[in-house]
Amino acid sequence: MADTKALTTRAQDFSAWYNELIMKAELADYSPVRGCMVIRPNGYAIWEEMQHALDRMFKETGHQNAYFPLFIPQSFLSKEAEHVEGFAPETAVVTHGGGKELEEPLVIRPTSETIIYAMFSKWIQSWRDLPLLINQWCNVVRWELRTRLFLRTTEFLWQEGHTAHATEPEAEAEALMILGLYRSFAEQYMAMPVITGRKTESEKFAGALRTYAIEALMQDNKALQAGTSHNLGQNFAKAFDVTFQTADGGLDHVWSTSWGVSTRLVGGLIMTHGDDNGLICPPRLAQWQVVIVPIWKTDEELARVLEASDLMAKDLRVAGIRTHVDRRQGMKPGAKYYEWEGRGVPLRLELGPRDLASQTVMLARRTGGPKEAVSTGGLAERLITEMDRMQDALFGAARARREAASLRGPKSKQEFIDFLEGTGGFVYAGWCGDPAVEAEIKEQTKATIRVIPDEEFRSPTAPTTCIWTGKPAVAEVVWAKAY
Amino acid sequence: MADTKALTTRAQDFSAWYNELIMKAELADYSPVRGCMVIRPNGYAIWEEMQHALDRMFKETGHQNAYFPLFIPQSFLSKEAEHVEGFAPETAVVTHGGGKELEEPLVIRPTSETIIYAMFSKWIQSWRDLPLLINQWCNVVRWELRTRLFLRTTEFLWQEGHTAHATEPEAEAEALMILGLYRSFAEQYMAMPVITGRKTESEKFAGALRTYAIEALMQDNKALQAGTSHNLGQNFAKAFDVTFQTADGGLDHVWSTSWGVSTRLVGGLIMTHGDDNGLICPPRLAQWQVVIVPIWKTDEELARVLEASDLMAKDLRVAGIRTHVDRRQGMKPGAKYYEWEGRGVPLRLELGPRDLASQTVMLARRTGGPKEAVSTGGLAERLITEMDRMQDALFGAARARREAASLRGPKSKQEFIDFLEGTGGFVYAGWCGDPAVEAEIKEQTKATIRVIPDEEFRSPTAPTTCIWTGKPAVAEVVWAKAY
Repeated sequence: MADTKALTTRAQDFSAWYNELIMKAELADYSPVRGCMVIRPNGYAIWEEMQHALDRMFKETGHQNAYFPLFIPQSFLSKEAEHVEGFAPETAVVTHGGGKELEEPLVIRPTSETIIYAMFSKWIQSWRDLPLLINQWCNVVRWELRTRLFLRTTEFLWQEGHTAHATEPEAEAEALMILGLYRSFAEQYMAMPVITGRKTESEKFAGALRTYAIEALMQDNKALQAGTSHNLGQNFAKAFDVTFQTADGGLDHVWSTSWGVSTRLVGGLIMTHGDDNGLICPPRLAQWQVVIVPIWKTDEELARVLEASDLMAKDLRVAGIRTHVDRRQGMKPGAKYYEWEGRGVPLRLELGPRDLASQTVMLARRTGGPKEAVSTGGLAERLITEMDRMQDALFGAARARREAASLRGPKSKQEFIDFLEGTGGFVYAGWCGDPAVEAEIKEQTKATIRVIPDEEFRSPTAPTTCIWTGKPAVAEVVWAKAY
Repeated sequence: MADTKALTTRAQDFSAWYNELIMKAELADYSPVRGCMVIRPNGYAIWEEMQHALDRMFKETGHQNAYFPLFIPQSFLSKEAEHVEGFAPETAVVTHGGGKELEEPLVIRPTSETIIYAMFSKWIQSWRDLPLLINQWCNVVRWELRTRLFLRTTEFLWQEGHTAHATEPEAEAEALMILGLYRSFAEQYMAMPVITGRKTESEKFAGALRTYAIEALMQDNKALQAGTSHNLGQNFAKAFDVTFQTADGGLDHVWSTSWGVSTRLVGGLIMTHGDDNGLICPPRLAQWQVVIVPIWKTDEELARVLEASDLMAKDLRVAGIRTHVDRRQGMKPGAKYYEWEGRGVPLRLELGPRDLASQTVMLARRTGGPKEAVSTGGLAERLITEMDRMQDALFGAARARREAASLRGPKSKQEFIDFLEGTGGFVYAGWCGDPAVEAEIKEQTKATIRVIPDEEFRSPTAPTTCIWTGKPAVAEVVWAKAY
């Protein structure tokens, strides 16, 4: 049975609201294993919809799925110097197998570059074998000290793409193509606006040449890194000796990329759209897009409305709408409405004897507004239109919220600090390019450079000086506190 | 580039043939991690098709997917006495995390009953919460001494269903329903005939009340356990205190089941249908059901046949046929035919300028027979019919092979032994029910009781005496050497 207590409101305590919403909607649960969560069916169904959409996009762009071992020999991790420095401190290590101590400990993959490049070195001989475009859906483990449901857990689920190319421009094009694909997914499926751009040296992936990211702004005005795409240059190819015969008979190391998104996206979806009543799931990612709640008083009515509900559900399913009939007896309609609202179902149809007589059904939208009697003729088309509108409205509202919480070109260092220490949000400002300044700002305000934004997101007039030092700016960058 | 060496034949060395086929078709590869394999795109695509079909069947029967932690506290495994005895010797153990030694070591899940029942005890309060029908797709680890690609690897991918019910009959019905579902999948998708039945006490799952299984016979006359479904009784419910309030106000432990199939099925598919030229993939599980190979001599022809191939592929895809156009240049048609044959693609279409002129296309079947010119009008319908026929023919041939390799009612102990030590296969014989006899036969012949077969598979006349001891038989059982 679902929890019937009201949620702490977002205004009262955003963090408590987030955790309570996840419990109330039964999206996930704490497990007896430190830092690991259980993804419950309601939450997993959202992840499955995300997987379907992304997997289709990956395959349409020529990628193939494969599966590599969970275990990585400890020596592999050490082959790329920056990589081991970045990941070694947060690994889980298997020291015993089959009752015996292992000769070489095995690390549970925190990411799979090393084991994958070991295989690539075996599979790639010639330019004819390139590009090699691989993706993997799997679990990874990073030993986190502070964990939060979906956002940061010791084990999480993700996809990791790994590609090898003959030239640097091809690898760069792949990394940017994937960044665009992630952006499309975030916008079109999650209805979550994102800024695209490049990470600074201090924020890039351990072992990458360049890291690109999509960054979203949550309702508490903290940023969420929602996906990353790395141009790895020849770093891993050199560490694992992945060479190929070039078309003109020479020998070169491949140029490679890696990129990933994870179950963290479910957290991003919650914090982008949820309200004080619970989850609001964008229609394109909802397990159930429409729930039909039959209404009855007598047994005779029960039989009639259940039959009509099933028929209606059948028609909607034929039209491609993911529809559920809530047949539970011994539970009042109001309690069902409350439960489906908490779980974020976009549209609810209430069907009783009076509706049958008038050939209508009552339509309620998760995003609010008055209920409406809708004709059962052409219902599927109507609901598809409603869902498209809701999807657009959610995206529009989230973008307007983000823009309202963005400050472009603060006039002074003090305004910059006040903004970050006040309501927070994205602040666009000039930066002198010095990593020491970046570190100092992080130390003082807890904000980090989220991205050096792509052209589309930059301010009309580029800032000329660094907001912190007054020195000439090398770029406009986006600052925010982040998850 | 695919390997162009001919395979060792099945008659020469079945085991070598199996490994070479996997390498040649690029289904999988050995990894640098002991006992772990890499599933390459060609092999993973088959697993994905298997997942799609099974996942649909699970959902249609009311199951929902979820995800539970990879790690299991060592103490959990010990809560069910038979379970820990069965699995503890083959676990991988994490002793360090985040650079520190853990207070309690964590076992990598060999199966997830224990962690799942710990959660069920939290989620289940009342009979209203039952049945709880959960499935999980994930990786598991069992430290195997002798490993074989797909059939037995330290890490493997599988699905594990876990359900909780209010009564024993409901749990039993679920376990049997799933057994039937597995059988349907094996027969209808894998074209692999199976015997259903119950495992003996010595072969059942560690912690189960009863284990049911589907058993198939490979081309080398060895059996493959292809899926298991367990009625767990109240064993795990008692170990993890999973209780519920009954409808009449009492308190009882739930009755539960678990069931699974794994990437081992890919090995079963290979050994059921493969021939000396490579893989034969049943159409319903093929990544590409149809490959179009364009044929040309001049550049002008190239442009025309590629355009026609793409159009043809588009039409076939609209009809739901998974179609690939092999556009590679610099590779002769014969080399392409050879490669797709090795990879098991059911149907090949060869399209050249002469075919364009006559509005036909050459059709070649992976299962042999002469090539045939087929009209491009109504092509999709024709190919769907061809695939249905091939699917049926593969199943029929595999069943006929199994029956030819089955011995019912050997006349003497010596005939029983000779059969098992000779060609091998399934032998149906009476058994006195004594586990010591079962152990002795295993010791002497390496054969085990695969199942106590369900009624449909039993011999018309039940054997009355044990083939080994001459004592009265308690059941007819099926013996075979097994993977």
